[in-house]
Amino acid sequence: MRAVAVRRGEPGPQLIDVPEPTSESGEALVRTLRVGIDGTDHEVIQGNHGGYPDGEDYQILGHEAVGVVEDPNGTDFDGGDLVVPTVRRPAGEPNEYFERGEPDVAPDGTYLERGIVGAHGYMSEYFTSPEEYLVPVPDEFAETGFLVEPISNSEKSIEYAYASRSAFEWTPDSGLVLGNGPLGLLTLAMLVTHDDFDRAYCLGRRDRPDPTIDIIEKLGATYVDSRETPVDDIPDAHEPIDFVYEATGYAPHAFQTVDALAPNGVAALLGIPGDHTFEIDGGRLHRDIVLQNKALLGSVNSNVRHYEMAKASLAGFPDWLTDELITGVYDPEDAAKAFESGHDVIKTVVEFDTL
Amino acid sequence: MRAVAVRRGEPGPQLIDVPEPTSESGEALVRTLRVGIDGTDHEVIQGNHGGYPDGEDYQILGHEAVGVVEDPNGTDFDGGDLVVPTVRRPAGEPNEYFERGEPDVAPDGTYLERGIVGAHGYMSEYFTSPEEYLVPVPDEFAETGFLVEPISNSEKSIEYAYASRSAFEWTPDSGLVLGNGPLGLLTLAMLVTHDDFDRAYCLGRRDRPDPTIDIIEKLGATYVDSRETPVDDIPDAHEPIDFVYEATGYAPHAFQTVDALAPNGVAALLGIPGDHTFEIDGGRLHRDIVLQNKALLGSVNSNVRHYEMAKASLAGFPDWLTDELITGVYDPEDAAKAFESGHDVIKTVVEFDTL
Repeated sequence: MRAVAVRRGEPGPQLIDVPEPTSESGEALVRTLRVGIDGTDHEVIQGNHGGYPDGEDYQILGHEAVGVVEDPNGTDFDGGDLVVPTVRRPAGEPNEYFERGEPDVAPDGTYLERGIVGAHGYMSEYFTSPEEYLVPVPDEFAETGFLVEPISNSEKSIEYAYASRSAFEWTPDSGLVLGNGPLGLLTLAMLVTHDDFDRAYCLGRRDRPDPTIDIIEKLGATYVDSRETPVDDIPDAHEPIDFVYEATGYAPHAFQTVDALAPNGVAALLGIPGDHTFEIDGGRLHRDIVLQNKALLGSVNSNVRHYEMAKASLAGFPDWLTDELITGVYDPEDAAKAFESGHDVIKTVVEFDTL
Repeated sequence: MRAVAVRRGEPGPQLIDVPEPTSESGEALVRTLRVGIDGTDHEVIQGNHGGYPDGEDYQILGHEAVGVVEDPNGTDFDGGDLVVPTVRRPAGEPNEYFERGEPDVAPDGTYLERGIVGAHGYMSEYFTSPEEYLVPVPDEFAETGFLVEPISNSEKSIEYAYASRSAFEWTPDSGLVLGNGPLGLLTLAMLVTHDDFDRAYCLGRRDRPDPTIDIIEKLGATYVDSRETPVDDIPDAHEPIDFVYEATGYAPHAFQTVDALAPNGVAALLGIPGDHTFEIDGGRLHRDIVLQNKALLGSVNSNVRHYEMAKASLAGFPDWLTDELITGVYDPEDAAKAFESGHDVIKTVVEFDTL
């Protein structure tokens, strides 16, 4: 079957031919429809990844997928069911985190990540998965269901943010998304379609006309140009922010966010920067975190509960949003194009098949 | 009546003579037994405080008090009831935070703090307080009840820490207290008398023999000398820590704590440093917070719910702990001595009366 993979010592994604996978007991065989591409895929291609699958010199890419059950193979699925796979798998025997359905809080070394760390991804005509890692989605998700995975990561971070404020009455009015990439835009849509947020902002560094600024404004949110308004100036330029979501991976943002927050506010950090040394007024930041009861939370990956939340969010999005967000749909033969960036590129997918 | 106060333009605490306060409607008159002294009192004396009470050129010190209801004045208290007052009062009309019993999350400018910000404290023979800000305590707290206020601040921070981890299964085994001052030692006692923490550590920078190290070890905890083992080396020297409580006010600790934490760990910050600029590898810290689902939470002040928790914690402490912790009991005439530091000084109190 055709698969898009990265091969040891060779640059860029390649279309390769590999044997169709065989379902083991408890695994369904899934026919892939679409696989989305995000920043992590670019890191995998650049070699910043957690390693090839054991004994392999290539890794199939892709961790944002939607597919159709081709062969239930004794699982509770029926042939034709639409499913979205989760990303983490146990490294070796399932551990307590997987057993209780919380692989997203498993420590390093106890998990693999399909398409990222030591396991093949979903960017191939077929893939297999244990049934417990396949989340059923409705048929209308055939073209958009690959977004359930990225949205689920934001669901987790928002869940954590609310949990962190649950010891007192917290009714956030203002939300700020740092980063106008696809995940930032999806999260902005989550905030504006969520009743609690009356006002939402999204920070980027692009000139108009720009398709991401169009989406931000069509969502009723305010675009903040970081070149004019740094993160720590947002309270003066706009208002102090109850909830900040960081998806830039630019480390100074994590610390400037303290200044952006309103009293009792919380920031969820999701970006994954490289080492980056800089100066901070750590005394002022520390003092402000304490005196204003502020919180900074890291959040990575997600679990099936967050996939279920993501299904609800995706179902509530207006159609124009996913239409405008998905700027490129490519055949596997053209997969390299799906990894190209550009002014008009927001989210691209590789499409293996349709429903 | 006698009161210990700081006077505008004059150094140090002074014993002054002021009129006995008059209870307004809804307020009880309380006869003061003991008032504890902490770092905030030293800051008030040094002038780093939020201002004198309106129209006054002096401020009565003290925010950690225990007293006896002298005149219930129509409140639900009986004469002779032992009470501990809370610290925050509305600045002007009560606002929503006070109305719902959460003055500890009220933003700057909406509250006064007795003995700290714009209101007289409790270091006088009598004080008055609205009934809702007086927490009844049992008679056996006559000598130790002033500790309910500081303990309540730690209760809040621990409550927030658990809340922040409540979206997943979190069973902390290891706890680390940064700072071996009285609040650090009290919090260490809370962790070791709390079932969840099997192993506890307390960081300081003192040589043996030292009475705080004696208390740490008598509690069954491990003393960590920060001159030998910096905060970020604790995982290598001991173990990664599930819950870190910071009470040093040394800003680098807030950031080094990220390295001290175990995956999914949380740090509560309570110290209040001045401005302090330094370099961090913010990229590494940001990345680690995200990939390990770590959290940093600020926590200030407390509310009546936390006072109730603090009563339970104090009641559960062994008698030797408060005996060894309270190293000086001074008459109001000797109050200046209660503000002196020294190798054998841990916690001092000014005693106006006994039960």
